[in-house]
Formats: sequence, C-alpha cells, structure tokens
Amino acid sequence: MNLHDAFDAPAPAVVLAEGKFGTPEGKTANGVVMHSELFDSQAVVDSTAAGQSASDVLNRDDVPDVPVVASVEDALEAAPNAEALVIGVAPAGGKLPEEWVEDIKEAMRAGCDVVSGLHTFLSADCQWADIADEFGVQLFDVRKPPEGDDVRVGDGRVDDVDADVILTLGTDCAVGKRTTAFELYRAARDAGLDAGWVATGQTGLMVGAHRGVVIDRVPADFTAGVVEDLVCDVAADHDFVVVEGQAALTHRAYSGVTLSLLHGANPDAVVLVDDPNRTGRADFERFSVAGVEAEIEAIGALSDATVAALSTWGDGETEAEKHGLPAANVYDEDGPSELLEAVRESL
Amino acid sequence: MNLHDAFDAPAPAVVLAEGKFGTPEGKTANGVVMHSELFDSQAVVDSTAAGQSASDVLNRDDVPDVPVVASVEDALEAAPNAEALVIGVAPAGGKLPEEWVEDIKEAMRAGCDVVSGLHTFLSADCQWADIADEFGVQLFDVRKPPEGDDVRVGDGRVDDVDADVILTLGTDCAVGKRTTAFELYRAARDAGLDAGWVATGQTGLMVGAHRGVVIDRVPADFTAGVVEDLVCDVAADHDFVVVEGQAALTHRAYSGVTLSLLHGANPDAVVLVDDPNRTGRADFERFSVAGVEAEIEAIGALSDATVAALSTWGDGETEAEKHGLPAANVYDEDGPSELLEAVRESL
Repeated sequence: MNLHDAFDAPAPAVVLAEGKFGTPEGKTANGVVMHSELFDSQAVVDSTAAGQSASDVLNRDDVPDVPVVASVEDALEAAPNAEALVIGVAPAGGKLPEEWVEDIKEAMRAGCDVVSGLHTFLSADCQWADIADEFGVQLFDVRKPPEGDDVRVGDGRVDDVDADVILTLGTDCAVGKRTTAFELYRAARDAGLDAGWVATGQTGLMVGAHRGVVIDRVPADFTAGVVEDLVCDVAADHDFVVVEGQAALTHRAYSGVTLSLLHGANPDAVVLVDDPNRTGRADFERFSVAGVEAEIEAIGALSDATVAALSTWGDGETEAEKHGLPAANVYDEDGPSELLEAVRESL
Repeated sequence: MNLHDAFDAPAPAVVLAEGKFGTPEGKTANGVVMHSELFDSQAVVDSTAAGQSASDVLNRDDVPDVPVVASVEDALEAAPNAEALVIGVAPAGGKLPEEWVEDIKEAMRAGCDVVSGLHTFLSADCQWADIADEFGVQLFDVRKPPEGDDVRVGDGRVDDVDADVILTLGTDCAVGKRTTAFELYRAARDAGLDAGWVATGQTGLMVGAHRGVVIDRVPADFTAGVVEDLVCDVAADHDFVVVEGQAALTHRAYSGVTLSLLHGANPDAVVLVDDPNRTGRADFERFSVAGVEAEIEAIGALSDATVAALSTWGDGETEAEKHGLPAANVYDEDGPSELLEAVRESL
C-alpha cells in the first residue's frame, strides 16, 4: 500500500534516529522531523542527544519543538497516541542490533505501524510479519522496489499528461534535489497552484510525497517505466508536478538512474541543483564534479527540457551572473518562490 | 558459477527452440547455433521445423549442418553425448508448458546441465533444484542478476585497466550490438590480438563471452559497478576487450542501461551500430530513432570515448560518406576487419 494513502496525515509518530540525529547519516530522520506532511513527529529517539529538542539538534528555528529522548519507551511515554514508528537511520553494518528489535516490538505492541528505511525488509521476514499480525499493525518497507505486475518498461505514455512536469536534477549526489523539489512544491502550493510531487528516494517518501519509489533499487529495465507511472498517477490529480531527481547525468556510478528519470518524467522544465564550492564528488574519490555547464549540455543532448533555473548552495545573484540562468538558494526566504517564478516563466 | 568457466568449450549441446527457431523471438537459439564457442550444437528441437537442418532454417551457408528434430527425445538420440540442454526461447506467456517440464527432466536424466534463458529461474525452484541434485547436473539461469556481495556501486576502478576497451552502442535495440561485438572480437583474435569480450545480454552469455551479466535485470544502483567488474575481470587476462552495449542513449525506455554501460565500461572507443532504414523504434510505437548524429552528440556530452566507426545494416561506403565516419557492414566478408582497423586507428 502507498504510504501517502495509508496514513491520515499528519499521523502522530515516533522517529528512531539512534546515534545519528542531526548528522548527514540521519538525513531521513532529519527530513521527516523538518518537512514531513505525513508524520507529526512527537518524539525523536537518540540516546546521544537525549534531553535536547529537535530544533536545538538541527539548529533551525522553523522546526517544531519536539523532544529528543533516550529510548522508545521514553518516546511512547511522551507520545502515547503515536500511530507510527519511523526508522529514519540505518544501523552500522546493516544488521538490526538486538536492542532495536526489542524497541521496534515495543512500539508495535503500543499500536504503531512501522515505517522502515532499512536495507533489509521487515515485511519479508516471517517473524516480523507474525508480530505485526499479532498486534494488528502494518509494516512499510519504503526501500522495497515494486515488482511483478507493478512494473513495466517505459513506453512514452507520460507524454499525454496535461500537467506541467518539473524535474530537479543536480551536478552531484547529496546536493539538495529532494529539498529543492519539496520547496518548489510547497512554493507552488502557497502560490495557489494545484501542485503534487513525486519522490524517488526514501526521505521524500517518508516526508509525504504523493507518490514515490526508491528508484535506484528497481531493475534497470524498468526504471523509466516506473517513473512514467508515478508521474502519470500524480498528474491525474494535480496540474503542477514536481519530481525529485537523483545523482547527475555526469556521475559515472549512478548516471543510469538519472537518465531514466529524465526520460521517464520527460519534464517540461528542469531545475538544476548545484553546490558551487564542490569539486570532488561526495563519497567518490576518483570522480570530480563536471559542473553546471557540462550538466546542461548533457541534458540538452538527451531531452527537450528547458533548464529553467539553478538551485544553488551559494549566493543566488552571484551564481545567476556566472551561469546566465535564474538562480536562488532555497534556504533564503524568497528562494523557493524565485525558483518557482523562473520555472513558470519557462513554461 | 560463470558459464564460461563451467564448460569445457565447446560442450556438446541440445538447443531447445520450440516454435521459434530462425525467427527474431528465437534469437538466443539462433545465436547459439551460429556463433557459440561454448556449445557445440548437435541438435535443435523445434517440432515446427523438424526434418530440416539449421543452415536451411537460418538460411546461412556458414552454419554447421545441425539436424532440427521434433522432440528432446529425438534430440538425445541424435546427440547421445550431449552435456547441456540450452533453452534458447521463452515460452509464450512466460510459464513453462507442461510438455517442456517433461522434456527438461528427460534431458537432465540423460546427464545434461540446463542452461536457461527463461525469465523465471529454475534454480530458485526447490523442485528443479532437487531434480538437478538427483541426476547430478547443474542449473544455470543466465538471466539471474548477481546480488549481495557480488554487486557494488561503480567507483572508477575500471580506469586502471591497461587493455583497450571497445564498446558497441547503437541507435536502437535489436540493431546488431551483440553481433558487432562478437564479430569485432573474432576479427581481433584472427588478427592475432589477445582479445576477450563481455556480454550484457543472455545471447552473448550463451554464445560464450568471457564474462557477462544480463545487465537490465540488475538494480539501477549497481549497473555501472557490475559493468566495471566485468571489464576489469576480462582485462586482467586480455589486451583488447570488446563490450556488448544495450539499447541507445536516446531510447527513452532503456537509456539508463545504456548510460550505465558507457560510464561503467569507460571505453577508449565506441562502435556505433545503425540500421539506416529504421525510423520508428523496434517494439515502441511512440518512440522514433534519433539517428547517428544525435547519438554521437549524446556520447560526446557524456564521455571522452571516440566514436571510431559505424557498424551499419546498409552499405558501408554510402554510410561512411553520409556520416563522415568509417563504416562497414559486419555481414560483408571484410566488414569485421574493416571495423577493427578503424577502431585500432582511433586508439
């Protein structure tokens, strides 16, 4: 079942972020607490930051005042009506530590569905499925790819959608494509547009995108087709559809995912996300960032989409001048609306 | 176990091609009979063509004189020393027909390993695994993607290989990338080069490529990394490595697979395969072929590889003039060596 359809948003939730809250490795938990329209975070579990509030740890004023606590037990006490346990970090080594097992069971016993971003799927484990049955709760593995009759090869049917489709691409990984997509969607909604958005990574899904799939887990044959279906689904109900991109066309490890997104979404406009100070690729020693112009050239060689604006980590005006393209920083107050304006002008 | 390491090539084999031998849907069976260095086809099973020889059905003089027979029983009589049953066609609807089940069992009873290109994996079915155990034979599902510790994200280690790496790309699917890769490899070997090749589709694997994976079944995250590993493996033993490409960078359904191949193989040279008379894409109503120049532009925007030559279905001289690029038809007697020469000049 689709996460967005499963919960009466916002559902009261406990977020498990043990040892990682506020760090890059906790980005799913951070995103859920900051941005989720699906979950109303009522407590964050991270024993290393217990006693603080989420806004302290995330160092942001616009975050609701959520307590960080030491255990799931404490969290359930702080949030007795919680309907979901959101596992927003992956344990080191990938294996579930024994203490997490007990914590997860405790939340299930208290009536929480479990929304998991773990690489191993709880729902594929008969023991967990039995426990869920026993307590009458559901297991959602957001990384689990669709399969069987739920996937197909792309065939271009996305070309028939009436909605405007905007894709966020980037010059590297971890550069803000999800945040830009979300902020664009929110700015569009604030501007009175009937906007929807499509997530392609786990954080976006947990934050509450209308539809989404962790696209890099899908067999390569089907990635473009899965993206087409997501866009068609959201476009059936909305006029303005923002799609979260992944990686970069020039990123040699993940470029296939990126190109499937470009060809599957077939966007009217692209917003390119860039960190002007990055030269080497995040997590890849041998790879360097090809840059804004190289990315625009590649987009132009492979699609008819207009690159409408640059979402930059730097200063909007400086970057606009450098690249001859409207540019804004989404963390600036007017950043999202400036990007939206540039997109609308390009359509 | 790798197919290439599992058999003492060429292993006497029976090829199952029921209802499809010589047709496009039988292309794996056709390829195995025509080109396999791994299997010595001694009988082809296709009741609709029984009584003819393979060279009649394939309409080619250079194919060995293999009998086409009506049943596996007849095939085992014609080939009493067969060591493998090669399933070179997929049954309509994907499900194994009951009569095939009996046929496959009969071959296993006679001591044949089973090499299957079916979409459903025999080795994942306990019943088949038990039968294989009972008769002491092995099951090879060539479409089965590597997983777990056998896959990784690309990291650029392919850049360290000393061998020359040549990738065949194309302007569409089903345009001859596998055939061109094989013919280039054979021409290189005939020219005295220490050549090896990498398959990325099932036919190439069954034909006997040194290494290979059905790449479109691999989760999108890992495609480039899997290609890197295949190229590094073959390059460890050979000086000249030909890699079979898939689809086209401009093919909106499968472009992600193509780009993962370009970035994972990081070739020194590309041979582009084109059918000059094709305008619509094979099997895709809505998609049209972007053409040689568009494909070259995309390759240039995304890699440093030289497009060294055109492998054309048309006339080499005409196409060379049209595109300003060395061109040859691999089905012409000198075609493969002309392509090889153009590649070597580009290195």
